[in-house]
Amino acid sequence: MAPDWIAVDWGTSNLRVTAMGPEGPLATRGSDQGMGQLAPDGFEPALLALISDWLPATGQMPVMVCGMAGARQGWVEARYRAVPCTPLDAGALTPVPTRDPRLEVRIAPGLSQADPADVMRGEETQIAGALTLDPGFDGVICLPGTHSKWAHVSAGEVVSFQTFLTGELFALLSEQSVLRHGLAGGDGFEEDAFDAALSDALSHPHRFAARLFGLRAEGLLSGLTPVAARSRLSGLLIGVELAAARPYWLGQPVTLVGAEKLSALYARALAQQGITARQLSGPASALAGLASLRRP
Amino acid sequence: MAPDWIAVDWGTSNLRVTAMGPEGPLATRGSDQGMGQLAPDGFEPALLALISDWLPATGQMPVMVCGMAGARQGWVEARYRAVPCTPLDAGALTPVPTRDPRLEVRIAPGLSQADPADVMRGEETQIAGALTLDPGFDGVICLPGTHSKWAHVSAGEVVSFQTFLTGELFALLSEQSVLRHGLAGGDGFEEDAFDAALSDALSHPHRFAARLFGLRAEGLLSGLTPVAARSRLSGLLIGVELAAARPYWLGQPVTLVGAEKLSALYARALAQQGITARQLSGPASALAGLASLRRP
Repeated sequence: MAPDWIAVDWGTSNLRVTAMGPEGPLATRGSDQGMGQLAPDGFEPALLALISDWLPATGQMPVMVCGMAGARQGWVEARYRAVPCTPLDAGALTPVPTRDPRLEVRIAPGLSQADPADVMRGEETQIAGALTLDPGFDGVICLPGTHSKWAHVSAGEVVSFQTFLTGELFALLSEQSVLRHGLAGGDGFEEDAFDAALSDALSHPHRFAARLFGLRAEGLLSGLTPVAARSRLSGLLIGVELAAARPYWLGQPVTLVGAEKLSALYARALAQQGITARQLSGPASALAGLASLRRP
Repeated sequence: MAPDWIAVDWGTSNLRVTAMGPEGPLATRGSDQGMGQLAPDGFEPALLALISDWLPATGQMPVMVCGMAGARQGWVEARYRAVPCTPLDAGALTPVPTRDPRLEVRIAPGLSQADPADVMRGEETQIAGALTLDPGFDGVICLPGTHSKWAHVSAGEVVSFQTFLTGELFALLSEQSVLRHGLAGGDGFEEDAFDAALSDALSHPHRFAARLFGLRAEGLLSGLTPVAARSRLSGLLIGVELAAARPYWLGQPVTLVGAEKLSALYARALAQQGITARQLSGPASALAGLASLRRP
């Protein structure tokens, strides 16, 4: 295999590399060597471990990186670009010095917003990709995940954005808090429990803090099942996010970019509010964003 | 030392025993043998490790227990009593069979509420103690902690109560979430940061989810100090709790029962709302509650 270039999505917990040919992706590989586990001199070996057999005997291979590899604690810091601005700028990539002369690595910087203070790293590339996949889109892009982002996009620029800890809160509460005793792992889902909790959280977000322990108490007292409790926690947290993100989605076209199952939950939640959201794949959007940097 | 009886406060993470004489406490000891680490047959040895030299050569020593030792996963289940009811009832203690014939152990049951579903274990004893220390109190007792409780008390009975995960959320967010990177450990506190976050959360609780990541982003972009970030997280979480607990405290006399520093934060927060709260010590209230069970 002789790729033209290599696309790299380097998150906090995972590394994902794709060999790119003239027609698109040739192969994808991944590892758990995310930014969180690596010191600065650990990035090049972690990358080579996945791509060395894609490199030419002589000459240089362009490697385009997005995500947390550009954080201050990452490989080389790629300083934030301040919104309003285009999500990516081919002229504003940060070159990375490497020991292996065959590598020509550049990192796409994240975006920052002064007030309210906010930052993203990696999602800007997915947003750029979503705009490639849906040219001329004007509206709101929501990227559900550990740290969900809502971005207002207009005329090809990110105008403003807002981050929510929803995914991280769900993980902490369901795996490490007292609620874990009453929550199923696994994949079960109860639509009614999700819908009711979502609606309650959207209508009465100030009661959020009072609802959490109720999941535990109802499990003890009235046999709330773990699957129902988990679905309800999900509805509650997404509902509180939607309540705070209302200025973003109200009356706007919304595109969801992310993992399919999680995006489907957000789509269901938005549908309850009369919003039909389009769904795009997160990895495909990231690839499309990185590919857009290669074009003239 | 020859105590009349022994008071035991057995929480999830800690065990605290007090030798009681006719005039009150003679000595207190503790260990980390909380309910969370113990199988049912581990409770008696954990207790004996602390009190064996307080036991008589012959005859029985009354041991009065409150807290999580009475949970379903505890020593012996002490089934909840349903509110409205007095916080404690000397006639409704659960006797515990022991191998050591010198022990005469009884566990005080917790309280349950059907709708909204809620439970407490241990706090009912502190409430009973607070009523002993302040006889005739009618109003609201707030017990800040890992799982904060608000209880409406009238004519010596707990009428209703509500639990909040505030302390657990603070621990998870400050120690395990992405926010940990920007939060000080230690004891620093900035009043202005706490007050502003509290006021913001009380006025706009629906923005809670949007505020959390801002702590991280302001640390990265505008130098928010770890002490200020920690104070603001505290104000934010207590503010969201107060927003949801408003039906409890609004226009009511409030007594805070708990650890001194945490109670002081709640007192400060309530003072912002024009409420002057009395503060009582948590351990002293628990002792007073257990002691009330010994009286005719």
